[in-house]
This record gives sequence, structure tokens and C-alpha cells, in this order.
Amino acid sequence: MSREFDLLITNADVVTASDRFTCDIGVRDGKIAALGTELGTASTVVDAQGLLVLPGGVDAHCHLDQPMGFGVKMADDFRSGSRSAACGGTTTIIPFAAQAKGQSLRDAVTDYHQRANGKSAIDYAFHLIVSDPTEHVLQVELPELIAQGYTSFKVYMTYDDLKLSDGQILDVLHVAREAGALVMVHAENSDCITWLTKRLDEAGKTQPKFHATSRPQPVEREATHRAITFAELIDVPILIVHVSGSEAIEQIRWAHGRGQKIFAETCPQYLYLTEADLDQAGYEGAKCVCSPPPRDAQNQEAVWRGLANNVFAIFSSDHAPFSYEDERGKKLKGKEQKFQYIPNGIPGLETRLPLLFSAVSQGRIDLHQFVSLTSTHPAK
Amino acid sequence: MSREFDLLITNADVVTASDRFTCDIGVRDGKIAALGTELGTASTVVDAQGLLVLPGGVDAHCHLDQPMGFGVKMADDFRSGSRSAACGGTTTIIPFAAQAKGQSLRDAVTDYHQRANGKSAIDYAFHLIVSDPTEHVLQVELPELIAQGYTSFKVYMTYDDLKLSDGQILDVLHVAREAGALVMVHAENSDCITWLTKRLDEAGKTQPKFHATSRPQPVEREATHRAITFAELIDVPILIVHVSGSEAIEQIRWAHGRGQKIFAETCPQYLYLTEADLDQAGYEGAKCVCSPPPRDAQNQEAVWRGLANNVFAIFSSDHAPFSYEDERGKKLKGKEQKFQYIPNGIPGLETRLPLLFSAVSQGRIDLHQFVSLTSTHPAK
Amino acid sequence: MSREFDLLITNADVVTASDRFTCDIGVRDGKIAALGTELGTASTVVDAQGLLVLPGGVDAHCHLDQPMGFGVKMADDFRSGSRSAACGGTTTIIPFAAQAKGQSLRDAVTDYHQRANGKSAIDYAFHLIVSDPTEHVLQVELPELIAQGYTSFKVYMTYDDLKLSDGQILDVLHVAREAGALVMVHAENSDCITWLTKRLDEAGKTQPKFHATSRPQPVEREATHRAITFAELIDVPILIVHVSGSEAIEQIRWAHGRGQKIFAETCPQYLYLTEADLDQAGYEGAKCVCSPPPRDAQNQEAVWRGLANNVFAIFSSDHAPFSYEDERGKKLKGKEQKFQYIPNGIPGLETRLPLLFSAVSQGRIDLHQFVSLTSTHPAK
Amino acid sequence: MSREFDLLITNADVVTASDRFTCDIGVRDGKIAALGTELGTASTVVDAQGLLVLPGGVDAHCHLDQPMGFGVKMADDFRSGSRSAACGGTTTIIPFAAQAKGQSLRDAVTDYHQRANGKSAIDYAFHLIVSDPTEHVLQVELPELIAQGYTSFKVYMTYDDLKLSDGQILDVLHVAREAGALVMVHAENSDCITWLTKRLDEAGKTQPKFHATSRPQPVEREATHRAITFAELIDVPILIVHVSGSEAIEQIRWAHGRGQKIFAETCPQYLYLTEADLDQAGYEGAKCVCSPPPRDAQNQEAVWRGLANNVFAIFSSDHAPFSYEDERGKKLKGKEQKFQYIPNGIPGLETRLPLLFSAVSQGRIDLHQFVSLTSTHPAK
Repeated sequence: MSREFDLLITNADVVTASDRFTCDIGVRDGKIAALGTELGTASTVVDAQGLLVLPGGVDAHCHLDQPMGFGVKMADDFRSGSRSAACGGTTTIIPFAAQAKGQSLRDAVTDYHQRANGKSAIDYAFHLIVSDPTEHVLQVELPELIAQGYTSFKVYMTYDDLKLSDGQILDVLHVAREAGALVMVHAENSDCITWLTKRLDEAGKTQPKFHATSRPQPVEREATHRAITFAELIDVPILIVHVSGSEAIEQIRWAHGRGQKIFAETCPQYLYLTEADLDQAGYEGAKCVCSPPPRDAQNQEAVWRGLANNVFAIFSSDHAPFSYEDERGKKLKGKEQKFQYIPNGIPGLETRLPLLFSAVSQGRIDLHQFVSLTSTHPAK
Repeated sequence: MSREFDLLITNADVVTASDRFTCDIGVRDGKIAALGTELGTASTVVDAQGLLVLPGGVDAHCHLDQPMGFGVKMADDFRSGSRSAACGGTTTIIPFAAQAKGQSLRDAVTDYHQRANGKSAIDYAFHLIVSDPTEHVLQVELPELIAQGYTSFKVYMTYDDLKLSDGQILDVLHVAREAGALVMVHAENSDCITWLTKRLDEAGKTQPKFHATSRPQPVEREATHRAITFAELIDVPILIVHVSGSEAIEQIRWAHGRGQKIFAETCPQYLYLTEADLDQAGYEGAKCVCSPPPRDAQNQEAVWRGLANNVFAIFSSDHAPFSYEDERGKKLKGKEQKFQYIPNGIPGLETRLPLLFSAVSQGRIDLHQFVSLTSTHPAK
Repeated sequence: MSREFDLLITNADVVTASDRFTCDIGVRDGKIAALGTELGTASTVVDAQGLLVLPGGVDAHCHLDQPMGFGVKMADDFRSGSRSAACGGTTTIIPFAAQAKGQSLRDAVTDYHQRANGKSAIDYAFHLIVSDPTEHVLQVELPELIAQGYTSFKVYMTYDDLKLSDGQILDVLHVAREAGALVMVHAENSDCITWLTKRLDEAGKTQPKFHATSRPQPVEREATHRAITFAELIDVPILIVHVSGSEAIEQIRWAHGRGQKIFAETCPQYLYLTEADLDQAGYEGAKCVCSPPPRDAQNQEAVWRGLANNVFAIFSSDHAPFSYEDERGKKLKGKEQKFQYIPNGIPGLETRLPLLFSAVSQGRIDLHQFVSLTSTHPAK
Repeated sequence: MSREFDLLITNADVVTASDRFTCDIGVRDGKIAALGTELGTASTVVDAQGLLVLPGGVDAHCHLDQPMGFGVKMADDFRSGSRSAACGGTTTIIPFAAQAKGQSLRDAVTDYHQRANGKSAIDYAFHLIVSDPTEHVLQVELPELIAQGYTSFKVYMTYDDLKLSDGQILDVLHVAREAGALVMVHAENSDCITWLTKRLDEAGKTQPKFHATSRPQPVEREATHRAITFAELIDVPILIVHVSGSEAIEQIRWAHGRGQKIFAETCPQYLYLTEADLDQAGYEGAKCVCSPPPRDAQNQEAVWRGLANNVFAIFSSDHAPFSYEDERGKKLKGKEQKFQYIPNGIPGLETRLPLLFSAVSQGRIDLHQFVSLTSTHPAK
């Protein structure tokens, strides 16, 4: 005889990444204990007749309570961020524990656990950001942290305070290969952005819309090709994060055709925004500044095709929220409104799932693809 | 309180195309009624501790009891074929109801149901083979049969008794689009095969190994490109069956990159045989004659990559068995041992799953890919 | 001491397909006898100071005095056609001697020589059109004609009165390979055009603009891929004529990358017209009906890129002129104004060179490319 | 009446990059004064009956008298180098005036003119090597030198004493665009080579053959893609020098397809050597050390295809000769025989033309391609 459930959801139209069936769901102690029919009794019974029941979302790329340069603070800590995630159907978040240059990686992890401790409304875990891969980090800290379950970390090919040299990226990839971890790569060519930004600045082209001009698609495509080459040389999978358009996609598809294990991620901003959104009056354009920048309608189509056709393994928010009432706002209000000083990032924890679900309604992707893209991570 | 089960499988390591979890499985009336823990009692309990429990295999491409030209009979009827499938872990088969030229499609369906009736040890359904798309077939029979659930049918671009013209294929695709059915395509250029076969015959090159010479990869690649073009013009998905190597794969990947919904299938013979297997003494070479023919080691690798990298949606046997004690055998034993008279096809219903599972053991594909490739069909 | 010249052109800025130099040009008996400085004396001296001197144009793809279906006549015979060519800077034309189905190829050649005899103002030669490759044609007539210098011939993949089957094309390519001749291919899928035309006709979409709708790019791309495959199987170069846009170009570039010798040709209509030109009032749209049809601005760009980047070996007119005062005109004026009855073809002998030269002025191609594209032929 | 010639070459079978004709050649004051028939008289007459007469070779990529690191000297100065070039049919050389880090570019030019002055047996000019693009170099020296005719310069993406950062390359390309000069790029990823070399060294893999292992094709392909991206961002042509195999070729062809003006060069070592040649006993392997390294037979084929199919604009020697009797020899004889200390480079000025001409004899390229590849330079 089956033990009574705490909660019984009846007549659920259950969809996983591969299957769909109608059944009851029995829950005990906050966990799904049984799927089936005639499962038994429960203290609480909810009838889900006519409703889809999907796995809770996993947002595997988001930033919470992460200090930025110039004294800018993020607008979300773990309390507010996790709540907005929950409101949007996401039940697990994986933000970053970011190492500052000169800092021990272990200290960064400790720091971020303190920031999160007792505040999150939902499950959470951490990716690491490796910005200073010293010999000690590579040989001691990173292997130890991987052994303790921190099996994914991100490297940057741009941003002065975060970027690694090509040789450092090879070092990190090598550790990942030895230890079986997954490296996420922010792929944009740093020198190109700096070069273009300087020219734009000299020409007085400093409004938010020139953020997009300063990092055109070839800048992302080049770094994507380079990252793929590093992964090929080390023979290890990588995850290219926040892919924005057709040119990076072309490189990823090319690598797939050669048999490389390259995972790719995209985000809502590359489906629903274009660079035209950066060209709005007042602060509105600045609110759409993220990197890589949104592209155009044709690239949106290319990203949609990639979602439908297995280019992308994952759909994340890259949540990085800033308030217009704090330093970012002051900066924008002050005389230094130049695009290169606007903190990069837009919010998305709460809206990620609803935005992509609208694509299911429109028939652009099917329900199984929706679940697969939103509730899993290649490093799991 | 839950109703008692007929069978309870405990401690199962359940793997679906997307998920993996340990649970008990309750079965009532031959169907899975519940997955979970503490499910209740059953008259029979089996402990699956340490064992994988996977969905039963679906072999969506096999030929049973299908008459061939020259009076050749297949070696399997529905009884023997379904038993060998069951022995290999396959619980559903989808063979073909093949229309002969001049025959009503409805009559073909009736005929095949009679062939199967009462004989199959497992579940079965039928794809149709459309070899004579008259106006009546296109406007009456096919739409009616689709409405009755025969939602997939195959067209041939080669074989004199089966092949359709380009225009006829467009007609069939158009019906599929209107009715929401899926067309499977055997893609090889008929004229090229005929032309090459004539040359080989004139040169006395008629041993089984020249079967491969008579239909080299470009012959398959060309027809694949052509079929993809037809699907593009009609704007309908298709399934390219039994893809043999890198050149057809290149075309399929190219279509994916353009956003077309092209499903692709491959078979064990393209992973485990090469054209060298056709060059064996006595009858042995003839036993490996199938179309397209097996290629070489490099193409095997390309097919493996395609399995790992989402080129293929499905892995089938293309089971088409012939005995060496019947007409095929007599033909081979007699003076007409020319490759062009050897019935095309090799068995595979029983060995399909074990062969692909060995790739899981070797780490070439993961368990979820195995389940996805072997127990589903795009037309479901 | 040098013999006196009939004509001396001094200070010429001479440009060939690869070189450029300033010199005098000495002419005797209608031929260039010397290039250089201080060449000697002449009865006539022309000072070319400040002028380019280029080789005379060769138009290697034009139709003159060729009978069409439905009793339609071409508007140019060899007299008028060769004069307009000369006026446009072309000094050699290579029109077609077209075999009708059932006709001897030799008779076709004799017929066309009679049509040309004594009429042409400039040099001429003939390509053959093979529309009926009987055993006699393949084994006797074609080899003999090739031996006599008719080393290039065209096959059609569309048009009911001209098209060959795939097997016939293989036969013709095989003869070309054995004898060292060059086959030109009109690449469009006949069945697709017929199928689309029937649908358009049923829908009452019969205005000239639907000519373009009835043969979209995939129809040309597919046939191009197929022709490339035939050339690969036979291992012989071919020339794909009148390439209209990016999709056929993609196939040609792909073949080049694989090392195949595929020559390609384009024409002024694919640089300067778009399908919008077919959508004009009255007869104007009909005047732009040619096959393949003009595409759009993006495809024009792709063709320009192909001219600059070695995709194309040759730039021809595909001159095929019709008058609006004769049968074509009557047809268009009558009730049968349907696009499918408009004779395909537009004039171009006179305008080919000036149109392409404007691209030199605009810097799209350089002078050497201009000369190479307009005064040579791969079969020479 | 024509002035008498110093030399008359009669009955010459003249071949240029685009034309072929039989004529006499009149020479005055060391220059070709006339091509034609019945040209007049000369003090010396040479009958070239039955002989090809081709333009003198231009070797646009060679190193002469260029100081190397570690005190190693090149084995050829301008006297010996120019003589061996002449013996091989080359009548013009374009070696490099190489700037050392910290040196004025103008001083480098002056220095190399002194090295060459009075020594060369044939015509010569200089490319520049820019290794230290200071503001003064970029804004003053380089524009002035370009204005004086030094219109081509090379940048390195590897070698510690020569390499530029991505930003510096963008700077140099920008100057080239403004002034209409051509930048040549040595494309290999420096960090990857350093990383792999360190690993090989640690593993004791230091024999000459590991030179090839330390810079595999992806290292060259990545840098090629990156250089193409820089050229795209600046919108300027570049010349990728010494392309070694299929992977870099794939990138160049890809850029061509997109309409970019990317010139490419290959060298005899990539047609006639493989990495197996580095694995010979004693010093023999070290004699084949050049960068990029020779690849394998399949890549040789790819380079041949590229020569026949317009991937390459130019075929140079990359002549960089070292003696085994000097420092290089001592180094190799001493205990530091590690591959990373072997000066990179092999001789080729004398053998370049005969080696490629053998390909004409074999029908791999035609005579016009031979002339075009060996006697021209994109920057002319």
C-alpha cells in the first residue's frame, strides 16, 4: 500500500524534454514521489485538468550581487533576484562566483556563498569566473573546487578587468579537460572593441547606440572561431554563451559539422531586441546595452532557426540588472553619458520563460525543445 | 489508496530520451501505470537493482513479407520478423504496405493487414509506399488513409518498379503538406545507377563488389539535394532514409543551416560494414548488398559524428532479409550472379539495438541519444 | 628593316587580360602585326593618345536566326545580329547550330552555316545544341564534328523540345570527355517548372511576372548541383551558362572548393534587371522574360561578387531577340498572354560590353577582369 | 622605318598570364621594344624556334641578409641570393626591409638599401616589415614611405621579436587603407605555439619533427580567420602569405565567397615537402624547418587545387637560407638541438620556378596560371 502524499496534482498534462503524457503527480516532502494513475490519497489535491505541467526552469546564466567597476552595484541581490526568478517559473539559478584579479578563487566562492546565504527563495548553485589563473589557481584551487562540485567556470575574452590571454585560456581549458569540468566562454575580441571604441569616441559618437557599432558581429565571430580552435587543440567541450547572431552561429555549426562538442547558449535579448532599441531617447537606449549587443531582424531569425535546429543547447537570461536610481543612473544623468561607461547587462530572470514560451504558442519551437532549452545545463 | 499492480519493477535505473532517475515501476493491464517510490503492492515483484530500464525499441524502417521482383520472396513474414525484433529489444515495428504500380493504395493496405493479422508478437503499424500516384490516389485514397492514421509514406527516386518522377514526388509532397503527413525518401539518382551499371556490365565487372561502384556517394548526394529542394519548394518536412555517408550528410546539414526541417535516418550497416564487405568469396559479399551500399571507414566516422551531433533523428534497421535457400540463393548459385540481380537488403531487426548500444558503452553517444534514436519516429 | 604597315595606331594604352602597357600597334592585312615603339611607317596613322585599346569582344553565347516553337521567329538573322554586335565592340560571335528532335546533328550544322553564309559582319563560329543524342549522334556524328572543330555543345535540362534525360546528359558528357570537348549546361529542373506553372495557371496567375515565380532559385540551384554531379561522375569539365543568383553560385563555389573544373557564365540581365522588371504594364514586363529569370537586388550583388572573385569565367549576352510586331507580339496582344507562352529571351549583343564596362568605371571589376570575361571562351 | 634592335629573338612561343602567340621580340637598351613579325634588323639574332618565352619571374617573398635572433646570420646576401634567383629564371626579387623593435622604420629602409647596394644581379625592391608601429611610425614614417613607393609591408602574428598585437595590426591596416598600400600577414597564433612548445619541451619532445606538432593547422587557420576579420573591419585587402594547407584555404575561400578581397600566397615547400621530411636522421630534418610547417599529402593536394582554382594569387619562395657551417649549424651540433631554437626557413629562390613548372608538364596547372602565379604581385 502506498504511503499518503502531501500533495496530489491530478490530470496533469506532463511534458519533459522528450515525452508527454497525462497522469497524476504525487509529492512528498517537497519532492515528486510518483507519476501515474490511481496513485493513492493526499492531504491536498489540486486538479490540473487542461494545464501543462513542466519541469521548473533552470537559469544557468545570471549575475546576482556581483560588484562592477566604477563602484556600480547590481540592482538585484540573491533575495530580490531569486524571487523574480520564482515568479517567472524558474526554480533553480546558477549565478557566478567571480574572482577579482589578485583574489584567491576560493575566497571568491566563500564571498558569494555569504552573499547568497539565507536569502534565496529557490535552489541555487555557482559557476566560477576565472579572471586570474595563477599557477596556484590552476594547480590547486581549481582542481579542488571542481572536486567539490564547482564543475563549470567562465572565461572572458574581453573586459579589461576579466579577460584572459589566449595562453591563459588554453591553461584553463586544460584544467577543465583533466578534471572533467565545462568552460563557458564570453567570445568577443577585446582589441577590436577597444580600437573601434577609440575611433568612435574621437568622432564624438558616444550615444548608447554606438555601443552596437563598437562590437559588430565579426568581433564576436572571430572570438568564437578562436575559442573553438582552443577547444579543438585541447580536445575539450566548451559552452559559447550569449550568442547573438548568424555569424557566430555559422562558426558553431561549422564546428558541429567537424564533430566538435561545442555547446551554445542564447538569450531573450537576441530574439526580442535589435540594435534599434539602443537608439531611443533619454535613458531608454542605455537600458538595452548588453554584450554582445542585440543585432537586427535577420539575425533574430537566425537565432530562432538555431533554437529550432539544435544549434543551441541552452537558453538563459544573462540577467545583469542595474538601477537608474544608483550609480549607473547618476552616470547616465551626468556628463559622462558615453556608451563605453554604461554597465553592460539587462534583467531577464523573470521574463525568460514567458518570452520563450510565446515561441511555443507561435509554433516556432515545440514544447519538448522549450523544456530542454530552459531546464537543463550541459555541465550537469 | 492505490490499486494493486500486476507487476512492480523496483529500483529501476530509468532512462528516457532526456531524463534519468531511479524509481519503481508499477504495471497494470500490460501498461506502465506509475513511476515512483513507495508505490504500493503487486502480485509480481521484480528487483531491477543495478539494471537500466529503457523504453522498448521502435523500428520505424523495416520490410516484412514484401514481394520482390523476379519472384524473390523475403525470408521473414510478420511472425518470424516480429519475434526476432522482440528478441532484440524492439517492441514496435513499422514495416511498409507497398503499392504495386497499377494497384490501388487501399488494396495494398488491406493486403498487408492480412499478411500481418494474428502473426505479430509485438505492436505494429504501417508506412505506405506510394509507387503509382494517380489522380485518384492523390485526391482520394491518400487523404483518406492519412485521415485514418497512415500518416507516413515512402517514395523512391530509384528502382524501376517503384520510382517516381520529380513531378510525381512534388505531387506526393503536396498531399503530405495539405494533410500533415510525413514523406520518407529513398534518395539515389536512378539514371546514374543505370548508366554506371550498363558500363560495368559491358566491362564484365559484375561481381557483388561492383554493386558499390554502381552507386557511388555522389549518386546519393545528388538525389538528397534534389529531395531537399522539393521539400523546400513545397515547404514541408521530409525524412531522408538510410543515409550512408559524409556527402549526403553534408547536404542535410546544409539544409538544417538554412532552417529546413529535414529529418534523417541511418542504419547499422553504415556504421559497421564497408564496401570491402561486398568483396568476399562465394555468397558472402552478396549478403552485404543493400542500397545505398556501405561506404568506407571515413564515412563510418562521418555517420557516427552525425549520430552524436543531431544530424540524425532516427536509427532504423531497414530490415530486408533474403534466404540463400530460395530464389535469391538459386540466382546466386546459377549463372546470373551479376550484382544487378541480387535483391537489395540485409536483416537487422534483432541486431539493431545491441549494435547501437555498443556505441553507448564506447562513449560515442550517450544513453539519452540512444533512447531518442531508437524508440521514436518523427511522424509520431 | 620592317615592312611598312597598313595602319599604325600610336600611343595606345593597351590592356589584355593580364597586362597593360603603352605602345604603338602595327596592322597589316587586317591583323595585328606588331606591338612596340618606333615600329616604322604606315599608310594610315591614328593617334590613340589617352585611349584604351582592348581586344575585340567575343560573345560566346547568343542565338541568331534560330526557329522557336509556336512558329515564332527570332528578330535577328546573322546580318542584323552581327552588325549590332560590331556596334557594341564585339568582333566574334559564337551562336548555336541547334539540332531539332529527330534531326541529324550534321544537318543542323549545314543548315546554320547556310543561314550565316555571307551575312555576318564579323567572325563567327558555332556551338552545337544536342537535343536528340541517338546512338548514331553519340558514336558517329558528334565525334566527327568535334574532330572538325565543333568542340563545344549545349544541353538543356528544361524546355520540352530540347531537354535531355539525366542518362542522356551522362552520354553526352562521356563523348565530350573522350573527345576533349566542352559541354555547356542550361540548368533548371524541368518538372519543378511544369509543376509550379500548372499551379499558377490554375490560380489564374499568368501575367509575365509569374514567369519568375514559376522558376525560383532552388529550381536552378538543384539542376546546377545535378549537372555538377554528372560532371563529377564522368570526370569532365562543364560550363554552367547564364547563372542568375547566389544559390547556383553557392553550388559552383562548392564544386570549385572540391577541385572540380566547373566553368560558369553570367549575363547582363542578372546584373541589371530584377524580377520587378517583369511586373510592368502592357508588354514591357514580357520584354524581360528570360530563363532563368532575373532575381533581386541581393542576388545582383552576389553575381557582381562572383565576377570580381573568379566564380565566373565568362560574361555573355545570351542574346535571343523577339519582335513585338511578329508572332510574339501577336501572342502577347491576343488572349493568350499567359507567361508560359512568351518566348524566352532578350537582346544583348550590342549592349553587353558597354554594360559591363560601366562596372570598370565604378571600380567593381578591374580592366583585366573585363577583358578576360568578355573576350575569351573556356573551350578555345 | 623602325630603328635597329640590339637583340632580336625570332619565332618565340610567347606566353603571358592570359595570351599565347608566336612572334619575334625586339630588344633595345635592355628592354623589350617590340613584339611582332617582320620587325626589322638587329645586331644579334637568336632563333627561339620551338621554345617558350615567358616573362621573367618575380619572387615577391624572400629574405636576404636579414639578421636573426641568437646571432644567427642568413646564408645569402644580395649578391649570392640574386644570382641564384637569376639562375632559376627570376629577374626581380622583393625581399624585406625589416624594422627591429625600437628602430625607426626609415633607418631600416636605409640599412637594407646599403646591404643591397651594388650587389644585386637583378632588379629588386623592398617590402617593409613593421614590428614596432609607434605613433610616429604610423603617422609619419609609414605614410611617407608609402608615398615614396614602399607600398607593401608585412606584419607578424607570431615570433616574439616581430609580432604585433591585434590592436597594432588594426592600426597598420588602417594606415594601409588610407594610403592604398597592401599588408602581408604571417598568420599563426603565437600563444598557441608557445603553449604547445612548452608542453612538448616538458615531455622531452624536442627533435625537429616536433616543430610541426607545435604549430598544427588549427593554429594557422585561427590566425587566418582573425586576419580576415581585421581586414573586414578595416575594409582593406590583405595578402595571407605562405598558406600551408586545407584549413587556412577553407577560411580564404570562405572570405572570397563573402566578397572580401583576400589575396593568398603559397610556396614550394607546401607542394613538395610533408612533415615526414622533418623526421629525418641527423641534421636533415632541421633543414626542412619552416613556418608554417609542411603538412601531409592530403594538404599538398589541397594546395594544388588552390593553385588551379584561383585561391592563390601568387607563388613565392619565402627564401630564408641558413648554413650548417655557421651559428645555426653550431646550434644544431651542440646540445641545444631543440626544435624551438632552429632558425625557421629554407632556401628556394633558385628552385621556385623549375618546381612549379613541373606542374605545368604534369597538367596540374596551365601555362597561363604558371606565369600569373610567378611573375606578378597583388601590390603592383
